[in-house]
Amino acid sequence: MDDDRTAPAALNLADLYRDYIACLNRRAWDDLGRFVADGVMHNGRRFGLTGYRAMLVKDCEEIPDLRFEIELLACTPPLIAARLRFACSPRARFLGLDVNGRSIVFAENVFYRYEGEKIVAVWSVIDKTAIEAQLSG
Amino acid sequence: MDDDRTAPAALNLADLYRDYIACLNRRAWDDLGRFVADGVMHNGRRFGLTGYRAMLVKDCEEIPDLRFEIELLACTPPLIAARLRFACSPRARFLGLDVNGRSIVFAENVFYRYEGEKIVAVWSVIDKTAIEAQLSG
Repeated sequence: MDDDRTAPAALNLADLYRDYIACLNRRAWDDLGRFVADGVMHNGRRFGLTGYRAMLVKDCEEIPDLRFEIELLACTPPLIAARLRFACSPRARFLGLDVNGRSIVFAENVFYRYEGEKIVAVWSVIDKTAIEAQLSG
Repeated sequence: MDDDRTAPAALNLADLYRDYIACLNRRAWDDLGRFVADGVMHNGRRFGLTGYRAMLVKDCEEIPDLRFEIELLACTPPLIAARLRFACSPRARFLGLDVNGRSIVFAENVFYRYEGEKIVAVWSVIDKTAIEAQLSG
């Protein structure tokens, strides 16, 4: 694999990432393989594209109004880091919390490693503390 | 403010950030003002340098073996994103969890915005779910 494939320019990677987020917001699950590698790892576990897609489909079933919004973006190829903002209403439990349809706002700070044009690893942290504060408020 | 001050080169910002982390690991609180602006914001709240320093001092009192380790770094000036790894033993409660001296490993995914050479805003998310899993395991 040559350098152009392992380390595309920062600009290209950011554009690719925005296309990936648009794909999620379109629920275009059949296109997910354009952005995510077959053997993708998620928080240290080998989800694979099938498992990754299943996770996203389940998230969108449990949170019908889920929408991914990029708030901050930093890119040093082959890494992208994003702060994603969510304003949504999970139908029942979410992260072990009884949300039950209430509207919540929370962030996810997440890193991605690319190989070529595809995501091969994801390290995601969701701001559970912020959700707990909203539910107890 | 000219462009050089608002957007120093990515390499410089990453170096500055590594110096900031080294400062934390030395507990060199008197040097903190070299890296953090007087009016610093933390997760949307105006901590200021004094409040930010107080938070760090308290963290290190409650977690004497706290050590900041950079696992991933992405930089698009004026933003830096880091995934920090912690392997430590909080003495009592941490994030509302009864850790009570047990050894835990967790990550923080965190964004920083710089103005010139100083951090003016921090958006931090700690992986509380990972800690809960370790405590219940």
